[in-house]
This record gives sequence, C-alpha cells and structure tokens, in this order.
Amino acid sequence: MERTKYTLDEKEMPTHWYNIQADLPEPLPPLLNPVTKQPTRLPPPLFPDALNEQEFSKERWIEIPEEVQDIYRLWRPTPLFRAWRLEKALDTPAKIFYKYEGTSPAGSHKPNTAVAQAYYVKKEGFKRISTETGAGQWGSAMSMGAMFFGLECKVYMVRISYEQKPYRRILMETWGAKCVPSPSKDTQIGRDILTKDPTCSGSLGIAISEAVEDALARDDTKYCLGSVLNHVLLHQTIVGEETRKQMEKACAYPDIIVGCVGGGSNFAGQFLPWIRDKISGVKPDMRIICVEPTACPSLTKGPYAWDYGDVAGLAPIVKMYTLGHTFVPPPVHAGGLRYHGMAPIICHLYKLGLVEARAESQVGTFEAGVKFARTEGIISAPEPNHAIKVVIDEALKCRESGESKTILLAHSGHGHFDMAAYDAYLSGKLVDYEYPREMVEAALANLPKVD
Amino acid sequence: MERTKYTLDEKEMPTHWYNIQADLPEPLPPLLNPVTKQPTRLPPPLFPDALNEQEFSKERWIEIPEEVQDIYRLWRPTPLFRAWRLEKALDTPAKIFYKYEGTSPAGSHKPNTAVAQAYYVKKEGFKRISTETGAGQWGSAMSMGAMFFGLECKVYMVRISYEQKPYRRILMETWGAKCVPSPSKDTQIGRDILTKDPTCSGSLGIAISEAVEDALARDDTKYCLGSVLNHVLLHQTIVGEETRKQMEKACAYPDIIVGCVGGGSNFAGQFLPWIRDKISGVKPDMRIICVEPTACPSLTKGPYAWDYGDVAGLAPIVKMYTLGHTFVPPPVHAGGLRYHGMAPIICHLYKLGLVEARAESQVGTFEAGVKFARTEGIISAPEPNHAIKVVIDEALKCRESGESKTILLAHSGHGHFDMAAYDAYLSGKLVDYEYPREMVEAALANLPKVD
Repeated sequence: MERTKYTLDEKEMPTHWYNIQADLPEPLPPLLNPVTKQPTRLPPPLFPDALNEQEFSKERWIEIPEEVQDIYRLWRPTPLFRAWRLEKALDTPAKIFYKYEGTSPAGSHKPNTAVAQAYYVKKEGFKRISTETGAGQWGSAMSMGAMFFGLECKVYMVRISYEQKPYRRILMETWGAKCVPSPSKDTQIGRDILTKDPTCSGSLGIAISEAVEDALARDDTKYCLGSVLNHVLLHQTIVGEETRKQMEKACAYPDIIVGCVGGGSNFAGQFLPWIRDKISGVKPDMRIICVEPTACPSLTKGPYAWDYGDVAGLAPIVKMYTLGHTFVPPPVHAGGLRYHGMAPIICHLYKLGLVEARAESQVGTFEAGVKFARTEGIISAPEPNHAIKVVIDEALKCRESGESKTILLAHSGHGHFDMAAYDAYLSGKLVDYEYPREMVEAALANLPKVD
Repeated sequence: MERTKYTLDEKEMPTHWYNIQADLPEPLPPLLNPVTKQPTRLPPPLFPDALNEQEFSKERWIEIPEEVQDIYRLWRPTPLFRAWRLEKALDTPAKIFYKYEGTSPAGSHKPNTAVAQAYYVKKEGFKRISTETGAGQWGSAMSMGAMFFGLECKVYMVRISYEQKPYRRILMETWGAKCVPSPSKDTQIGRDILTKDPTCSGSLGIAISEAVEDALARDDTKYCLGSVLNHVLLHQTIVGEETRKQMEKACAYPDIIVGCVGGGSNFAGQFLPWIRDKISGVKPDMRIICVEPTACPSLTKGPYAWDYGDVAGLAPIVKMYTLGHTFVPPPVHAGGLRYHGMAPIICHLYKLGLVEARAESQVGTFEAGVKFARTEGIISAPEPNHAIKVVIDEALKCRESGESKTILLAHSGHGHFDMAAYDAYLSGKLVDYEYPREMVEAALANLPKVD
C-alpha cells in the first residue's frame, strides 16, 4: 500500500521564516514614495516597525514568534499529499505532490500572514487593525488573526461583494470583526464618493483608501495588507519550509513547482524556500511556473515598470510587471487573482529568468478543478484551479515523453465558498475572458512618471 | 510551550472498526418487517450482503478493507485538539479535547461510512447507488464515496432544500452525482405526488421512498443510508478508535464525552469505542452525554417504542426513542439533527442507563459556537454547536466545583456551508423552538401496533 500523505508533527513545524532577500543574485529595486518618488520605507504611521524592518531585512532566517507558532499549530503543519489518483487518471509517469492549505479555519493560506501581522500590531501596543477586502478571503483571515490577539478589526469590503457574497462577511463577523460596505460613511473619502454617487458599487482602490484613512486617523490603529509586500511573502514561507521537510520524508525533490499568482503571496510562500537551491546551483534546472488568469495577465502581458501598488495611487510605487494601477480586471471567479500588478519579489525573479509564467483561461481551469475533485476528492478554490490546469498539462507532457518528473503543486485552499462558480461551470454558463488589451493599454497610459 | 494537537501518522490509522454488539450487556431488539412485523434482516434487494452481515454481526473487530483505508487516508487520521484557548476563556480547571472531522473533503464525518458503503456496493458487482438527502450533507458525502469507486450516484434531495440551499447540490454534481429535487418525475411515487400537488416542497420521507423505489426498480442499483443503522455507526467507529490512540499520546482519559445526536452516527462513532470501558468496569463513572435540539428531542421526550425508521413506513420497524415517524420537526438550522427517532444502538444504551441525554435550544447553541470560533478559530456546523454548548456548561461546572475533569468533544465538522445561520444569530434574528408537544402527541398516535 502506497503512502497517501506526508504529515509533520507540530514539534517538527519550522521555527523560522525564510527571507529570500538574503540570497537574491541582485538586490530588489527600492520602494518609491508616491509623491516625492524617492526611495522610501513603508509609511510608519500605517505599519508596525517590525514589519517595516522585515520588509527590507537581509537576514536569511527570521524567527517566528512563539505566540505566532502557537496559533499556527491550530492548523499547521498542513498535509502534503501524493496525488496517486490523479496520476492514475492521467496515466502519467509523473509524480504529483500537493501541499494543501485548505485545512486552516479560514480554508486558505491567508491566515499564515494575518496571524503574524496581528501579533506585531499587538506587540507594538496598538489595539485595532484596519484593512480592505474584495471577495473577502483576506478580510476573513485578518478578522481571525485579530481575534486571536484580542484586537478590534475593521474591514472595508467592496460593496458589490458585500452584497453579492455575504458568506465571507459573516465569517468576519463571526470572528468578531466589523465589516462595512465600501464606500462607507465612516471615512471622508467614502462620504465624498457617496455624495457624488450614492449607489457606487465600490472598488478595491476605494476600499484601500478608506482603510488607510481609517488607520491614519486613529493613534490606536495599524493598517494590514494581505499580499504583494515582502513581509507578507516572508510569512507565507512557512508553507514551503514545511514542504521541504515533507518531500524529504517522501524521498522526493521537485523538478517542477506550480502555483497560482494574484498578488503572489501564496505561491511565493511555497517556491521561495526552493528557489534558493536554483540560485545556489544545487538544482539549476528546477522549473517554477507562475499561473495567472488570461483576464489579468500581469507577468505574461504587462511591462516591467514603476507603478502604484494600489488603484488610488496612495501606496508606494514599486517596480513590477503591471497592467496599470487603474486597470479593473474582468470578473473572473478567481477573485484572489484579480490584481493589476505582482509582488515585487516575484517580478524580480521573473525578470532574472528564475521563474516562468503562464496564463490560463477560466473554463479550462474549472475543467481541471473538476478532474481534481473527481480523483483526489478535494474541491479547490478557483485560484488553485489555475495551477491544477498547468500541473495536469505538465503531467500529460510527461506521458508523451515518458519522463517521470516530480511535480509539486502549491494548493492554496478549498472551494466551499465558491460553489456558485462550479455551478456555472457544470451548467455550461461559465465564460472565458480574452486578454482585455484595450483596457490594459488605457491603464498603462496612467503609469506614474519616474526618472 | 503546550501541545495544541495530537496527530497520528497514516500508518497509525486503525485497521478495524469496533462493533459494540460484541460487548452489549443485553442484545439489541430485532428489526421487524414493516408489513409482517416479524424479525427481519435489512431488505436484501436494497442493501449489499456485506452490510446486512455487519448489521447483525457479533464480531468485535471488523477489518476495514484495504481499498477503504486507502481512501480514508486522504483526510484521516483527523486531528485531536486540546482546547487551551477555550479553557482559558472559561477560566476552568477542566481539560477540554476535541476530535475534529471537518478536514474531510466534504467537511464532515459523513464520508467515513459513505466510502465504506460504496466499496461494498462495488465489490458485490453493482454499478449505481440511490440515496436521499435533506439539507445535503449525506448526499454530498455519498456522491464523493461513489465517485472514488466509479459508481453512478443518484440523490433525491428534498425540493425545498434543493431550491434554498444549492451549495451542497453543487458539491454533489461536482463529484459527478446526479441530484434531482424530490418529489421528482423519475419515480412513480414522485409522479403521483406531483400530479396531486405540482408545487409539493417535498420531505425526507418522500425522498426516501423515491430512492428506495429507484433501487428496487433496477438490478444494478443499491440503496445507501447515512445514519441510524448499525453498520453506519460501525463505520464511524474509526473516529473513536483514532481518538483513543491520540488521548493515550496526550496521557489523558475522558471523564465526560459529549456529542450531538440526530440519527446518532457521528456521536456513536466517537463514544462506542470508549463505552466498552464503562461496560467492562474499567471506567464505570464515565459520563457520555448525547445532545439533541429541543425542537426534536427524541431521547429526552420520546417514548421507547416500536416505530418505522422512515416517514413513509417502508423501512423496517425498530425499537427506539421516537417522536413518531410522521413528526416533522421545526426548521432548526441543524438539519442533521432533525430525525424523528434515534439509532437503535444509542437507544438501547440509553435505556440501559449507560448514556445520558440533554436537549438544547437553538440560540444558546450558536452563542456557544461563536465562543468556540472566537477562541479555537474553527467555525462549527450548527450540529456540533449543540455539543459545544454542553461542553462549555460542564467546564463551567468544573470551575464552580474546582474539579479538573477531562472532557472530550466529538466535533463533526465545519460550518462553512452554514454561514446564513450565523448571520441570523449575529443579527439577532435566530429564534428558539419550544418542544412541539402537540405535534409530537399527534405523531405518536401513528406508531405502528406491534405485539
């Protein structure tokens, strides 16, 4: 009987996050102040000092605070599976493994950083967190993180999602957070917008602006962000560090690592602990494939340019592959992949040729997700379905070539909150979105000018 | 640093189900044929022979087939948690443990028997399963079980749930099952009802009748049931057997075991492996508390009587605590606890004084569930919230008495499909249901006459 999964005891859980900045062949470009366009730190009034330090740290290993480890243990270490059933269904000689983050109380990887961020906010004496959320994945994880440290949490949720997708709002409220539809009457920017357009359905840009205004207006509040920034990716490396231990138990080493990318924190959390072997020459032929939606293809279609991290242009300017900060992607179900840019660390590695990128369209990703559900049992969120599509394609290539490659899938979470998307797919109503070239070109005209 | 959870490697997973019938102080009453009222087996056209044997077996240990173990390993062994945070919030000297089944792909304990039943249906050469479902927990688990063995699965889902709660229907379809609203046009009984009442919203009784007719009409089909029967409880004992190993690792032994009961399979799966220590005198003072809703209080209010297992009166007659097979419980959110009777094994043990029972009303169970979510992180289904309420009450009694009792909670699954119920609670709209005495008295007048 073959082994199905590789578990770690909680005593085997890694005690340090891995910081890729210690091992980059070239340093990251700086962040730029959105007004002066000069190199800058994260705005100190918004972020705890410890996170600002982590953002720029060159220390290879950063200790995970005991209190954070203690909460991680509620769902960590997460399981690594060998996908025997999928391999058999594909009749492939490839060995497929997947690391699964769906067993967290929020059903995704997001709590890995939410808990850490809440810890530092609390430790530095603050009592309250403000943040924004689109479909609600990040807002719900942050609500849970804040709860564990007795912090108040205020989430500005894009109004159209607040109204159409109530379940993640209820998750937030169950964990004790206050969630309001954005634009809201609780901030000046919200009130101004509502005065002009009382029925405004909101946007992530507006929600960020409200959360930032909220944090700036109160001495007891810090602002938290769920992806993109270096410290967020850092916190997610617990995923890859666990996987390294588990793959060692499986006597296996990945030839190909595949994950979906929106802001990039999920996949970076898995592959950063491996890419150091590629950089150092231990495994130079390792392939790392970032999968994005054709509807929002920042790596595969965007230029490597200076752009604002947020739609409103309040956040620092970063060097990244971007579709333009004013680009609003088509409404694919994978809400977590609808970000105009990409984590600077991933962009830097892509520019250096250390990772690959591929864009997949919606219907094919659900076809792959259903195949996964009908072999491995797990019903995946729309985001990891993008990665599953590529894993299946690579496994089928192995069938053609006869190669027995080892493929590792970064699986970010379950799809129990996304059943309406599966319904659309199964009933033939799901649509593909072509690359929205004209919208991107219009948005790219709005890039900030940086010398 | 204290240990948060006790995991087992998949190689430590129990290889046998535990059959309480080997250790009962008195044998179970027989099943009676619904027409002749003579002792009977399960109807052979409906059930695989192996399950009929298990239903009446006196063998203490029944080996879990390799193929079933292999699928169990996708989510088993499940974790046992020490509820440090809940203990601290309650300021109790009690030690609280919970065994959590929410990490299965369906989010509950139901797949433990669904997979086993599908295995035997396949092994005996059948190609198709028919079953019924109310809110969809069982139907979705059975769909997954059938999928793993390449069986077709047809689920008759109570029409009002089919329309109001589409998410579990979509789960079923994602796993490849066919789900139709009941009454349907696919059976004679369905067509007859629709002719008389084209807008009939359905009932579990009608859905059972359709699933049974379906199985009887086709040589390639067997019928599967998700609770109540002995073989279903047997398959769930994997839960308690794992817990015994985990509690041993924790150097702990339960003084009190608490679980929710509808048909009874979830809680029996946990406590049957422990109650043998109470029967044998190893732990005579062990308390086992079955928690049911005040809206459907079969153990605490019903007589111990012969009654049909199903609303339509097609199933065998069993001796059980019952509210009458024609009783339709008020619409509490804990759909899995809305059964008019109770598993004969649990009723027998209750009659013998080996287990206790308690009824809890809806609002208090959600209050307990929110306390659990805000300490342990996990958002629980409405069913286990009933057990959490009693765990908290017992822990508070320990605070008063100063006793450091060990309390074990059987936690059947997550509440990610039940967020609307949390919304109702958090917005103050959730209602309590008093014991519906008059409805029960009317239903008890319909009990079958057995000499």
